[in-house]
Amino acid sequence: MKPVKGSLVVIGDEVLYGHVQDAHVKTVGRLLLKKGFTIQEVRILGDDPDLLAEALAELIRKTDFVVTTGGLGPTTDDVTCEALCRAFGLKRIPDEEYKKHFQRHLRQFGIPWKDAFEKMTHLPEGAVKLALDRPMAGFAIEVRGKPLYCLPGVPHEVEYLIGKEVLPELEKIFTARRCVVRRVIRVQGMYEWEIAERLADAEKTDPGFESVRIGYLPRPEGETWVTITLQAEDFAKAENEIKRVVGYVIDRIGAGFVSGTDDDSLEKVVGELLRKKGMKLAVAESCTGGLLAERIVSVPGASDYFDRGFVVYSNEAKEELLGVPAETLKLYGAVSERTAVEMVKGALKRSRADIAVGITGIAGPGGGSSTKPVGTVYIGYGTRGKIKAERFLFHGDRELIQRRTAHEALRLLWQELKE
Amino acid sequence: MKPVKGSLVVIGDEVLYGHVQDAHVKTVGRLLLKKGFTIQEVRILGDDPDLLAEALAELIRKTDFVVTTGGLGPTTDDVTCEALCRAFGLKRIPDEEYKKHFQRHLRQFGIPWKDAFEKMTHLPEGAVKLALDRPMAGFAIEVRGKPLYCLPGVPHEVEYLIGKEVLPELEKIFTARRCVVRRVIRVQGMYEWEIAERLADAEKTDPGFESVRIGYLPRPEGETWVTITLQAEDFAKAENEIKRVVGYVIDRIGAGFVSGTDDDSLEKVVGELLRKKGMKLAVAESCTGGLLAERIVSVPGASDYFDRGFVVYSNEAKEELLGVPAETLKLYGAVSERTAVEMVKGALKRSRADIAVGITGIAGPGGGSSTKPVGTVYIGYGTRGKIKAERFLFHGDRELIQRRTAHEALRLLWQELKE
Repeated sequence: MKPVKGSLVVIGDEVLYGHVQDAHVKTVGRLLLKKGFTIQEVRILGDDPDLLAEALAELIRKTDFVVTTGGLGPTTDDVTCEALCRAFGLKRIPDEEYKKHFQRHLRQFGIPWKDAFEKMTHLPEGAVKLALDRPMAGFAIEVRGKPLYCLPGVPHEVEYLIGKEVLPELEKIFTARRCVVRRVIRVQGMYEWEIAERLADAEKTDPGFESVRIGYLPRPEGETWVTITLQAEDFAKAENEIKRVVGYVIDRIGAGFVSGTDDDSLEKVVGELLRKKGMKLAVAESCTGGLLAERIVSVPGASDYFDRGFVVYSNEAKEELLGVPAETLKLYGAVSERTAVEMVKGALKRSRADIAVGITGIAGPGGGSSTKPVGTVYIGYGTRGKIKAERFLFHGDRELIQRRTAHEALRLLWQELKE
Repeated sequence: MKPVKGSLVVIGDEVLYGHVQDAHVKTVGRLLLKKGFTIQEVRILGDDPDLLAEALAELIRKTDFVVTTGGLGPTTDDVTCEALCRAFGLKRIPDEEYKKHFQRHLRQFGIPWKDAFEKMTHLPEGAVKLALDRPMAGFAIEVRGKPLYCLPGVPHEVEYLIGKEVLPELEKIFTARRCVVRRVIRVQGMYEWEIAERLADAEKTDPGFESVRIGYLPRPEGETWVTITLQAEDFAKAENEIKRVVGYVIDRIGAGFVSGTDDDSLEKVVGELLRKKGMKLAVAESCTGGLLAERIVSVPGASDYFDRGFVVYSNEAKEELLGVPAETLKLYGAVSERTAVEMVKGALKRSRADIAVGITGIAGPGGGSSTKPVGTVYIGYGTRGKIKAERFLFHGDRELIQRRTAHEALRLLWQELKE
């Protein structure tokens, strides 16, 4: 037995030209991993039927199954079906049942039937339409004894089809297989190589570590991910084993540096701490312009602990919304420790929060000086009794400085709350 | 002469397993396109030297140049160099000058020298270290007569190295070549197939359209992109031609539906309109939790027109920060047209803004009812004299509903401001 490894072909000129960031690889990779399947290789190709046909033929030979996304729409740049037929010498034939359902869906949305839709209902011979009951394209087909899934290019449709159609079928086809599991350990405030040093001999000599792969990944926001990957003959066994290994690795790194695993993002962990303590949070943001609030509110149920946010971009807003004294702004500047502290004070006073954060800084590209270069940020945080502020110098472009600032604010909150 | 087409290999298990969304394809694709180069194919592979070696050998044969990202670090999962040596039968030799510079950079950051760093300074024979003066990995090498660039996995380092090192060299190597140019036309409030109908015969019969490719791309936020791609024997000629074609296509679609081209995002266009009119904006957000403010502030110089944002997640915050009457919340509910209008009124009253937006809705997953299902959103907008509100029903998960809502709010602002 060996692990089942598939391949994914993302189709679309817009990704190759850099006009759109691909989102399918992440969705498909995550969902497959949940059932112990992995992707061996991804190819991103343009709307070119010849290159596409070549890749499909090669990947069906090299991997256990193939998934494609995109290129199933009604316009002239939708070429997936054509490429598939070319690759495996198939004819394209009308699917009357699909057409009937398609027409019903269009009526629901009040969209009239167009000639251009006709070609979408012509599928390669042997193909089975997926999710007939839903208004989305996509079909499955067996070629050269292996399963191939052609999915549409719309992210939430890909997510639906992988979960409800592709995975159940893959589990039926590949019953006996080794399962791959993987965990991410999120480490705060430690360099990649520092972590690697702490784990160096662990990978080699500690018992049970032979089949384990450890990876290191510094994230742009400022945390480092340690990844653990292993396989076992069934999913339950693999899950048990990785639980043990993760515990061991966290011990070696030092539990105080680990904020969570997998999807336990810092905003989620901070939210859980706030909920547990029954505390409410308010944030006052200048240079991050709502990014911190947005990260916090991205967690479902954030209304339990997030009271409100102030986006105080102008000096007037800082004075009027938060009561930052005009003299503080004049004497120390909007980007200063004093202003950050006053922002926290104001946010606490003008909200129902028990703890607050105040962020002021220079995200650039303009606005820097020799004493306060672009990337200079002050983050204030604390409760009514105790407010602290720290100065940071972040590197990178405007977006990166904003992201690092929001992350650092979350890290400070995390440290404060977990004590 | 023909266009120069390269390939990109993104290396890293974390992308295949869906733990991280790749960002390199977008960066590299965009930068190459600015000089008329294109990517024919992207491959994403794990930290497996054998599969990597196979792909490198194949891509050097099939494309004009190869770029790789990732796998150059000090840890055991960094395997790019090894794969490259295996693919082309090269030895790996110490680069003393690189080591000297590397040590200098480490001293600057106060990081001590580690044995693990040593392997990073051993490059394949014939390789030339890129950007010796900067603290980043990456080298260039010629194999089988074609250029190959191995870049690090850090996004802003990739951006720097492509712009300052790779592109200037590619321009020297490929002097005589056809240049590819491409534009995105951003269309608001029109379906993909509606646009395709308006452009259907244009692609076939209108003069000068033979070498032009038109693509259609519905974006999850709610706008549709029409892409125009063409080539010519030099860059200036291609630029002139595409300017003409873009003008023609916009006319055919209807200028009133087009908000901008390329990087002219809706938030940028709205910002320019505000600046031109000397108006200031305030936003009050409930279910989008700062996302709209964040999109607006992501544009450099937003402080010229963005006054402030209120993230009023709780009913108390809506009352206290915006003065939404308790009776309105009680009688009509927090998610209602009345509340949206009151939020706009409050945002105008409690800011220095001339125009404001108020958003209230149910992003889910919880909180829906039969009369107000998940996805129900009210967006209020207007000036002191004239406030309107509209009801929407957005589909998708929490994140998608938030993104669609923020986009729709920008679209309403855009329509209001451009009149």
